[in-house]
Amino acid sequence: MDPVTSHTDYKPGDIAWVLTSTALVFLMCPGLGLFYAGMARMKHSLSLMMLSVLAVALVSIQWYFWGFSLTFSTTGGPFIGNLDHFVGRGISWEPHPSAPNVPMSAFFLFQLMFAAITPALAYGATAERMRIMPSILFLFVWSTLVYDVITYWVWGPNGWLTVMGVMDYAGGTPVHISSGSAAVAYAMVLGKRKDYNHPSTVPHNVAFVFIGTALLWFGWFGFNGGSALAANARGIQTIINSHLSACVGGIVWVMLDYRHNKKLTLIGFCTGAVAGLATITPGSGFVSSSSSLVFGLIGAGVCNLCVSWKSKYHFDDALDVFAVHYVGGLM
Amino acid sequence: MDPVTSHTDYKPGDIAWVLTSTALVFLMCPGLGLFYAGMARMKHSLSLMMLSVLAVALVSIQWYFWGFSLTFSTTGGPFIGNLDHFVGRGISWEPHPSAPNVPMSAFFLFQLMFAAITPALAYGATAERMRIMPSILFLFVWSTLVYDVITYWVWGPNGWLTVMGVMDYAGGTPVHISSGSAAVAYAMVLGKRKDYNHPSTVPHNVAFVFIGTALLWFGWFGFNGGSALAANARGIQTIINSHLSACVGGIVWVMLDYRHNKKLTLIGFCTGAVAGLATITPGSGFVSSSSSLVFGLIGAGVCNLCVSWKSKYHFDDALDVFAVHYVGGLM
Amino acid sequence: MDPVTSHTDYKPGDIAWVLTSTALVFLMCPGLGLFYAGMARMKHSLSLMMLSVLAVALVSIQWYFWGFSLTFSTTGGPFIGNLDHFVGRGISWEPHPSAPNVPMSAFFLFQLMFAAITPALAYGATAERMRIMPSILFLFVWSTLVYDVITYWVWGPNGWLTVMGVMDYAGGTPVHISSGSAAVAYAMVLGKRKDYNHPSTVPHNVAFVFIGTALLWFGWFGFNGGSALAANARGIQTIINSHLSACVGGIVWVMLDYRHNKKLTLIGFCTGAVAGLATITPGSGFVSSSSSLVFGLIGAGVCNLCVSWKSKYHFDDALDVFAVHYVGGLM
Repeated sequence: MDPVTSHTDYKPGDIAWVLTSTALVFLMCPGLGLFYAGMARMKHSLSLMMLSVLAVALVSIQWYFWGFSLTFSTTGGPFIGNLDHFVGRGISWEPHPSAPNVPMSAFFLFQLMFAAITPALAYGATAERMRIMPSILFLFVWSTLVYDVITYWVWGPNGWLTVMGVMDYAGGTPVHISSGSAAVAYAMVLGKRKDYNHPSTVPHNVAFVFIGTALLWFGWFGFNGGSALAANARGIQTIINSHLSACVGGIVWVMLDYRHNKKLTLIGFCTGAVAGLATITPGSGFVSSSSSLVFGLIGAGVCNLCVSWKSKYHFDDALDVFAVHYVGGLM
Repeated sequence: MDPVTSHTDYKPGDIAWVLTSTALVFLMCPGLGLFYAGMARMKHSLSLMMLSVLAVALVSIQWYFWGFSLTFSTTGGPFIGNLDHFVGRGISWEPHPSAPNVPMSAFFLFQLMFAAITPALAYGATAERMRIMPSILFLFVWSTLVYDVITYWVWGPNGWLTVMGVMDYAGGTPVHISSGSAAVAYAMVLGKRKDYNHPSTVPHNVAFVFIGTALLWFGWFGFNGGSALAANARGIQTIINSHLSACVGGIVWVMLDYRHNKKLTLIGFCTGAVAGLATITPGSGFVSSSSSLVFGLIGAGVCNLCVSWKSKYHFDDALDVFAVHYVGGLM
Repeated sequence: MDPVTSHTDYKPGDIAWVLTSTALVFLMCPGLGLFYAGMARMKHSLSLMMLSVLAVALVSIQWYFWGFSLTFSTTGGPFIGNLDHFVGRGISWEPHPSAPNVPMSAFFLFQLMFAAITPALAYGATAERMRIMPSILFLFVWSTLVYDVITYWVWGPNGWLTVMGVMDYAGGTPVHISSGSAAVAYAMVLGKRKDYNHPSTVPHNVAFVFIGTALLWFGWFGFNGGSALAANARGIQTIINSHLSACVGGIVWVMLDYRHNKKLTLIGFCTGAVAGLATITPGSGFVSSSSSLVFGLIGAGVCNLCVSWKSKYHFDDALDVFAVHYVGGLM
C-alpha cells in the first residue's frame, strides 16, 4: 500500500469492475455446487456442495503460496513460472504486464477465482463416487501440475503458447479444457458408479439446478466480462456475446430435447445455457455478436449429442462435465 | 453528465456501473421465477421457473434481431422505430443519445435486460394455467407489438410521449404498466383456474419466495440505480429511494395483514417490499427520499387493497401481478 | 487518493464501487436469514428469515430518520452525534469527512446497510425463542442506544475513540462486537430454550446454510472491500485478506471437527468460513495477506473452542453468535 509513482494513472472504474467481477466469479463456485448437487442424487448432494467451496478454500491458499507465482511470474521460462511471487511476494500496486490497467493485487485476486473454479468444474464428473479426503490431495496436485502449467503456457508472459500467439480470452484452454480432461481422467480412474444407468440416477432437486444456473450465468458476466481486466469496449462486447450464446444454448437444448422426448424441461434449458456459456468463453472477447449466436447453437448442439453418445465412451462422467466443458471449450 | 464528445472521454466507472447493473437486472429474472414458483402450488413451480429464464432467452434474441432497433433507433417516427439497428447493426462504441456517458453497446445490453424481465413479470398472472409452447409465441409477439412500441413512445428519442415531455425514470410505464396490463389481458383470455379460490391455492414454498425477493430487491439496485446510465448523484438518490420504499412497503403490508389476520407473515413482507419497489420505480429518479417513504406507504397500501378486492374484478390474476405492478406502476 | 476539493472531482469508479458494495452488503442480510434458518429447526426457520429482512426494513427507516445523524453528524460531542441530519437533512452531493471520495448520499447508503445487518446478526442468539413483536421494539431501541452510540465513538469524526486514534476498519467494534454482546445479553434475558441440548436441535436444512454462507461470503467482498469507500489499493488488499481468512477459517474448522468426530461436514466449513470473515473484518484494511492467514487460523480455532465450551457459560446462544462474532470480532 505504499504510494507509488504510477498510482494516479489507474482509473477507479477499472478497479471497481475487476473487483466486482472477482466477486461474481466467486459466486459461480457455490453456484456450481448447487448445480451439481441438484443434478445428483440426494445422498450425494451435500458432498458436491462441500467440494465446491472446499476447492475454493484450498486452491486460494495454494494460489497465494505458489500458484500465482508459477502461473504468472514474469521472468520464467517457456514451460513454467518461477517462485518470484512465492507467498505473495511482490504482489503490489504496480501492474502486471498482462493487466496494465489495474494493480497486480487486483489481477492476483481475479485470477485466484479462476484457479479456484476450474477444479470445482471437474468434480462434477466424479460425482457420487469420490471421497473428500483424496479430493483434497487431488486439488493441490492437479492445480499445481496441470492448471498452473497449462495456464502459464497460454497466459504467462513467456509461455510458449503465448509466444506463438495463441489467442485465448477468458480461459477456454486453461479453464474448460483442462477441467474437462481432468473430468475424463478422473472418471476413468474411479470407474463407473455401481448403479450407473440405473433409472434412479436422475436429478433429485431441479430447484437447486435452477438456482445454481442462475448464479453461474450471473457470475459469468464477471468471468468473461472481467477478463477484459478493465471496464472497456471489449468487456461489454464479451458480455453481449456470452449472454446471447447462453440464450441460444438454452433454447437449442430445449428444442433438441423436445424432438427426442416431446418434453420441455428446465434441466435441459439450464444445461444448454451452461454449455452455451462454456462454448463462447474462449472466443468471447474476439468474435462478433452474430458469431456468438452460432457458438451457442453449435455448442449446445454438439454437447447435447455428446451426452446422448456418452454410453459409447465407456466412462461414467456423472454430470456430463466432459460433454459440456471439454467439448464446449474446444470449439 | 454532459455528452462526451469522443470515445476517449468515457469514464470506466460509468461503464463499470452499467455493466454491474446489467448483471443485477439479469439476476432479477430467475429471482422472479423463484418468487412466483414459491407463491404457486408445487406442481406448477417448475414451469414458472422455466418461463422466467425462457423469457430472458427468447426476448434477448428478439432484442438483438429487431427489438432494440424498433425501440431505440434514432431516426424513427413518433410511433415506432425503424430497422436501422437490425441484427445489431451500428451498435458500437459511439454513444446513444439516451445514454451519453456509455457506449451504445452497454446501453443495448442494459436495455436488453429490461426488455427480458417485463414479460416474465406478466407470467405471474397466468400461473398454473398456461402451457409453455403458446407462451413462446406470446413472448415474441407481445415484446414486439407491445413492449417495443410503448417503450419507444416513452423513451425513444422521437417517441410522441418523449416529445410531449413525459417523464419516466426506470420504466414505470414500459415495464410495470405494460406487464400489469398484459397480465390482466392474459388472465381474462385464459379464464379462471378450475380450482380458483380452492383452499389449496396457497404458497407452497415460502423459502423460494424469500430467496426470490432477496434476489429481486438486490437486482433492483441495478434496475433503478443503473437507469441513471452513469455512476452519478442521480443513481445514488434512486437507490436510496428504492430501498426506503421497499422497506416501508414491507412493513406496511405486514401491518395491514396483522390488522386483518393477527399474523405477521414472511410472504406478506415480501409482497409488500416488491410492491414498494414497483411503486417507486417510475419516480425513483425524480423524487426526494422523504417522498419515497410516501410512495412505499401508499403503494403497499393500495396494492394490498387490490389484492383483497381481487375477487370483485372477476378475473384470476393468480399471483397478483396486476395489483402489484399495474397499480404500483401507475402511481 | 486525496480528498476531492469540489464535487466535479469525484471519480465515477469510486461511486460505482461503493454502490456495488452497498448492494452486496444488502444481500448479506437475507443470506444471514438463510444461514440461521438452516441452522435452526424447521419450525423456526421462517421467523429467522423474517427477522433478517424485517431488521433491514426497520433499521433503514430508523437510519434515515435519526440513526445516520446520531452516528455521523460532524458537529457532535465526544459521545453521541446530534440531529443535524435528522430525516435526511443535508445529505447531499458534498462529501462527508469520513468518505472524501464519494458524495455523502453514497456514504449514507453504504452505512445504512452496515447498521441494518448488525442487529440481524444478534438475532441468531435468540433463535427459536423470541417473538417478532418484541423484536421490532428491540430493533429501534438497540440500534439507537447501542449501535449508533458505539459506532459514533469509533467512526464519528469527534467520537472519543476516534480522537484517541483507535483504528477500526470495517466495523469490528461496531458491528461484530456489539452484535455479539447483544446476543449474549439477549440470550441471558430470554433464558434457555426449554428443549436446549435436546438431540433434535440440529440444523434442519444444510442447503440453506450453504446458500446463506455463499451469499454472506459474496456480500462480504462489499462489506470489507467497500469500507475503503473508494476503488483503491486498500479495497483490493482488504478483499484479499478477507477471502484468505475465510478460506483458512473453513479449512481449520473442518479439520478440528474431523479430529473430534472423524467427519467432514459442510456445516463445519460454513461456520468456520464465517468465523474467519468475522475475525479478519476489523483488521482487514490494515494487515498483510500473510497475517490474514493467521487471523483465519486463530479466529476459527478460538471460535470453535468457544462453541465446544458453550455449555459452561450457562447461556443458550442458539446459533453461536457470541462465539463467532464477539470472539471473532475481538481479535
